[in-house]
Amino acid sequence: MFRQCFSHSWTIAGVSWCGFLQLLSHLSSSSRMSLLNWFLQMLPSGQIIPLPSLVTAKFGSDASKPTVCVYGHVDVQPALKEDGWSTDPYNLTEIDGKLYGRGASDNKAPVLAWLHAVEAYLAVHKELPVNVKYFIEGMEEVGSTGLDEMVEKLKDSFFGDVDYIIVSDCGWLSTKPAVTYGTRGNCYFLAEVKGPKLDLHSGVYGGTVIEPMTDLIGLLDALIDARGRILIPGINEAVAPLTEEEKKMYEETEFDLEKYKNKIGVERLMYDTKVDILSHRWRYPTLSIHGIEGAFSASGTKTVIPARVVAKFSIRQVPNMDPKIVETQVTDYLNSMFALRNSPNTLKISMVIGAKPWLADFKDPIYVAAERAIQRVFGLKPDRIREGGSIPVARTLQDVTGKKIIMLPIGGYDDGLHSQNEKMNRYNYIEGTKLFAAYLQEVSQLKR
Amino acid sequence: MFRQCFSHSWTIAGVSWCGFLQLLSHLSSSSRMSLLNWFLQMLPSGQIIPLPSLVTAKFGSDASKPTVCVYGHVDVQPALKEDGWSTDPYNLTEIDGKLYGRGASDNKAPVLAWLHAVEAYLAVHKELPVNVKYFIEGMEEVGSTGLDEMVEKLKDSFFGDVDYIIVSDCGWLSTKPAVTYGTRGNCYFLAEVKGPKLDLHSGVYGGTVIEPMTDLIGLLDALIDARGRILIPGINEAVAPLTEEEKKMYEETEFDLEKYKNKIGVERLMYDTKVDILSHRWRYPTLSIHGIEGAFSASGTKTVIPARVVAKFSIRQVPNMDPKIVETQVTDYLNSMFALRNSPNTLKISMVIGAKPWLADFKDPIYVAAERAIQRVFGLKPDRIREGGSIPVARTLQDVTGKKIIMLPIGGYDDGLHSQNEKMNRYNYIEGTKLFAAYLQEVSQLKR
Repeated sequence: MFRQCFSHSWTIAGVSWCGFLQLLSHLSSSSRMSLLNWFLQMLPSGQIIPLPSLVTAKFGSDASKPTVCVYGHVDVQPALKEDGWSTDPYNLTEIDGKLYGRGASDNKAPVLAWLHAVEAYLAVHKELPVNVKYFIEGMEEVGSTGLDEMVEKLKDSFFGDVDYIIVSDCGWLSTKPAVTYGTRGNCYFLAEVKGPKLDLHSGVYGGTVIEPMTDLIGLLDALIDARGRILIPGINEAVAPLTEEEKKMYEETEFDLEKYKNKIGVERLMYDTKVDILSHRWRYPTLSIHGIEGAFSASGTKTVIPARVVAKFSIRQVPNMDPKIVETQVTDYLNSMFALRNSPNTLKISMVIGAKPWLADFKDPIYVAAERAIQRVFGLKPDRIREGGSIPVARTLQDVTGKKIIMLPIGGYDDGLHSQNEKMNRYNYIEGTKLFAAYLQEVSQLKR
Repeated sequence: MFRQCFSHSWTIAGVSWCGFLQLLSHLSSSSRMSLLNWFLQMLPSGQIIPLPSLVTAKFGSDASKPTVCVYGHVDVQPALKEDGWSTDPYNLTEIDGKLYGRGASDNKAPVLAWLHAVEAYLAVHKELPVNVKYFIEGMEEVGSTGLDEMVEKLKDSFFGDVDYIIVSDCGWLSTKPAVTYGTRGNCYFLAEVKGPKLDLHSGVYGGTVIEPMTDLIGLLDALIDARGRILIPGINEAVAPLTEEEKKMYEETEFDLEKYKNKIGVERLMYDTKVDILSHRWRYPTLSIHGIEGAFSASGTKTVIPARVVAKFSIRQVPNMDPKIVETQVTDYLNSMFALRNSPNTLKISMVIGAKPWLADFKDPIYVAAERAIQRVFGLKPDRIREGGSIPVARTLQDVTGKKIIMLPIGGYDDGLHSQNEKMNRYNYIEGTKLFAAYLQEVSQLKR
């Protein structure tokens, strides 16, 4: 089951990592770096391969100072030029102060900025105000496979002397800097309907067989209605009610609905007010249907009855939802809807990602320290925001290590994570590096 | 708009055509062969290219003999090894008397068998009993683009002296030879829903935008129910009622429901009786959803909200449906269902194929001649069958030229047209060639 992996090679396909690797090798002389054991992973093809290596590093070991641990990831979402990118997604391209490339903002620039922050202290021969550890993974975009087990394994060793954990795998909400105190989780489902043993000609067989695609479409349509309401019993009931305090804070958050609409190019959103939009982005669940595997997806026409089709959909998780319970709710509901169809085909539901939501106390001293550092670098008080996306490692790190977690973003609000033309502003990259350096200073002042 | 195309090069990607081309060049010395003008076509990418050349040929010009014209096509449906083929779909592979390859049965072997039939007469220096013309196209699988216009153009010249037209682009229903007296037509639709200007991260935007995929799934689910009933108003009402004579003929047709189920690997069909299955295969409409372009269709997971999704579905046409009316019915219905959703996204419906059904009189002398030829080669009386698939050229040729059409299949019932592991039996290929040669003899006996 386990496999030792001592290779230093990076198995991540993606943007050139020359700069990163050079920096790592430069730093390694004054640091301790280790490549840890990882589990194996099974690819969709069924092939079993080792997981990519986890990289850890440590700068400073002064027991009189606090120790912070920076989390980051180096893997990226899929991207093809033909998806509609203006530049090659796997060659970093600077245009007008913007650095375009898959992963530029999610999460490569923040990881580099954290390395630069430490590098800056070393370069001017200034003592680091705190001990700094790095914990960099390569499976985040597919649900951090193997990470939970690894954090569990390292909680007393690597994480034993850590006081605070910082995650910068997120972005601002507007042009104003922000601290992030919550993220949604995500439950990602595959719904497979299997019928005939092979694809059939729709002329020859259409009308005589019960088509898997018709069954699957019927099931997907039962998940969510035209107004965005999730129809699976129990899901909405689990959601923590919106408080007056939250409402007030959402009102005061800098967020322009018109800009938001223009950015994504829609005439109308699901809701009309700032409070509704922010709450449905941050603290209510939602369900997205991502696509169908096995059906005809190319351009042109094909008169096929696909024999096996697999829908992919996911439900964003918020307090107090529990992925284990959601898995049962979705499976039971779809099985009962499928039974109503009286189909001879077979249905198989599997939850392949089950990431919990995360919520922190923004009045905690580590957040106060972050707001002070932002004041120092940007001269203003940041917004307190949540993330609609999932950074499940925050919840895992908190639950397993018991340490305090903070999310400190430097990405721009319009970076386009997971989308075409993802970018990082040169401004955010440089000022973000300054913020991280300042934050280390602020953290060193905290009472332990 | 028009373009002369004198090139002899074959632009069809597919099975090796060396044998075919060699044969053509061998025959050309004793025949007249011409490459005709064709229209241009627009690819899904927007690129405009010439249509593949239409090939015609003529053997014999004795005005005292009848002239038959054989129709065939050389293009094929898409095929990938990873769809589940056991052999390379584009390299003809013989295993246990079966010739596997994309297009082996649809329609390469029948075209070759017709060439062999004439070749046989020439090889033994026996006078052809009738004049034989060939009319071979390369766009059948995408709806015979440009063919209607070409037949119209040639109706008085090329088709002027033709008495009968023979189409062998079909197969038997069982192991028993058959004559085919009807085909269903097909209306192929694209339903495009467009929303945001680019794909979005489902965590960051999920819950705030009205997703095109949710809209599209809702529309698709409104097309057909779990029992296979088409829900578009007007479609079922147009269908000619089933007669007692038809019912009786279906009862007497050789067709084994258990074998049919085993062949496609399903436990239960849409209906339980032979009459229901044959009538829903031959003379009732059906609707198949083929797939969705623009959504996430690869293996693995991607948390994307696709910005533009295009569903592909088609409705098989039977007497007395009219594709022009069906186009309006589908468009109006989907637009009205979409309006109910009150979505800010846009919907565009387009019918990209609109092929009429075709029905002949199996008591006509050209059918009687075919049954006599089958009796001679196979020693039995054939079944009179219809095709569930569409061979729109039969209807076009009949409507435009006013000539009598017959469909004379040689393909096996289990050839797997449009499916993985399409094949042609060596037996059907050789006996089919004999049948065609015998049929030319029988046709020469008909009173003109």
